[in-house]
Amino acid sequence: MRLPKKVVIKEVGPRDGLQNEKQMLSTEEKILWINSLSETGLSYIEVSSFVHPKWIPQLSDATEVFKGIKKRQGVTYSALVPNIRGLDRALEVDVDEISVFMSASEGHNLANINKSIAETYPILAEVVKEAKMAEKTVRGYVSTVIACPIEGPVAPSQVKEVANRLFSMGIDELSLGDTIGVGVPTQVERLLEELLPLYDSSKLALHFHDTRGTAISNIVKAMEMGITIFDSALGGLGGCPYALGASGNVATDDLLYLLHEMGIETGVDLTQILKSAQLLERILGKSLNSRQMDIIRKKGKERIS
Amino acid sequence: MRLPKKVVIKEVGPRDGLQNEKQMLSTEEKILWINSLSETGLSYIEVSSFVHPKWIPQLSDATEVFKGIKKRQGVTYSALVPNIRGLDRALEVDVDEISVFMSASEGHNLANINKSIAETYPILAEVVKEAKMAEKTVRGYVSTVIACPIEGPVAPSQVKEVANRLFSMGIDELSLGDTIGVGVPTQVERLLEELLPLYDSSKLALHFHDTRGTAISNIVKAMEMGITIFDSALGGLGGCPYALGASGNVATDDLLYLLHEMGIETGVDLTQILKSAQLLERILGKSLNSRQMDIIRKKGKERIS
Repeated sequence: MRLPKKVVIKEVGPRDGLQNEKQMLSTEEKILWINSLSETGLSYIEVSSFVHPKWIPQLSDATEVFKGIKKRQGVTYSALVPNIRGLDRALEVDVDEISVFMSASEGHNLANINKSIAETYPILAEVVKEAKMAEKTVRGYVSTVIACPIEGPVAPSQVKEVANRLFSMGIDELSLGDTIGVGVPTQVERLLEELLPLYDSSKLALHFHDTRGTAISNIVKAMEMGITIFDSALGGLGGCPYALGASGNVATDDLLYLLHEMGIETGVDLTQILKSAQLLERILGKSLNSRQMDIIRKKGKERIS
Repeated sequence: MRLPKKVVIKEVGPRDGLQNEKQMLSTEEKILWINSLSETGLSYIEVSSFVHPKWIPQLSDATEVFKGIKKRQGVTYSALVPNIRGLDRALEVDVDEISVFMSASEGHNLANINKSIAETYPILAEVVKEAKMAEKTVRGYVSTVIACPIEGPVAPSQVKEVANRLFSMGIDELSLGDTIGVGVPTQVERLLEELLPLYDSSKLALHFHDTRGTAISNIVKAMEMGITIFDSALGGLGGCPYALGASGNVATDDLLYLLHEMGIETGVDLTQILKSAQLLERILGKSLNSRQMDIIRKKGKERIS
């Protein structure tokens, strides 16, 4: 197998995970957890989202969280920003990297952002421009890159169109999201075959939800095609553990197991990651939905003692 | 991706799944469930094991189960057999295919069979010979092909040695088991690179447990290398759902989702499979640990109505 020597894991649990948990963490609990993530060797933590609190009440304390966390040298602390108002809030607390987001499908974009794709472009273009003027790097997110819960299958050419628009605005990196977790490796291959002739693999990240158990196989295929950046959430946060449809991000800890066993460097310490996951379980008062955490429960704490 | 057009799924839930469940099913419940599996399009069902009841009390009614099930034309109903005494019991109820089993590692073979590898060979050779004289096909199982819970990593050359001995006895097919579910695609590749120069891919099956969430990615890699036979258990039976370390076989229903979405034929009807899984959940009185069953619980019954 041709595989990258090193992969970057971008931890999105504090944002994408928590926004999909019913349970609200206090600001102090979030800060405690994010500080523990900073001790794991992760180089990128997506801390929160500066959307209107009405949209995502779980993340309404983005400002306070950014003010409270202890930033570690070498770690990028990023946040999602939907518009100029959100950008202003993010710049006030000196967020390291700004993420803008939209969907590849009209239906999901409308449901999620309440605007058509055409109406979304100028808003994001303004945010990217202003963020660049503030000397921030910008990450673009495109959701529903495989299929849309409203429209069904999404053509790779449709994703390419959105990618082209976002890159032409000046984003530094694009994260491609299988938002509903339906993708399989053949579909990942087709999507990347559409994009890799246009964009260097170092500009593309993949963001899988593991709803149907295919995320790890999709990541392996993407790595074989040269992708080296993957989003994940500690413990698969955001899915509903042990009931009612696990649909969270692929679990950081399970992804680390895979990568390290395949001899791929991440710079992340799995032992520290599992300690951070145990802290998160204590905060949440419930079990996380990853295989690594299952194994710890089974074995007692021998693995991380 | 180079992928097979068609894959054979061998359902091992009634044997490998049930033997790892604490809960005992009655003979009638097993028959009811196996009969429902026969209606799904599966071409192979591993029904039970003719080991001594002391070893696996869950499967002590192998004879009664075989007598009770309604055999469907075109479906192979197989059973595990540890020795000549087990073979005699299996032949009495006209089992379609006989499976013999051992481990690639001394430690696991000793723990599981209470014999060294060298002591095991002649016993299996006798079973294979007698089964062949009774005009049965014979499947060989080799466990711990990636790693052993006692000895750690198992060298592909060690697996090859066992494979060579089993094929020289006259087995028709060999199923390679990652018994403790630790394997990753690079290890699967190394193992198959050792075996495929010697044996046609049609003679090799892969048998993954999904303890660390890597089974589906391992199956994809194996298919890319030409393997077309995979063992799985409905709903991931045999792991502990929602607690204490899921370690069952890869789930038949999740595997079917992957294969069908990748355009690979199986002859199996996912809707019927999910109905059989729901029947099994009613019998067990608990939830099964597959993503497909999670989704059904989440959505209510819309998917299979």
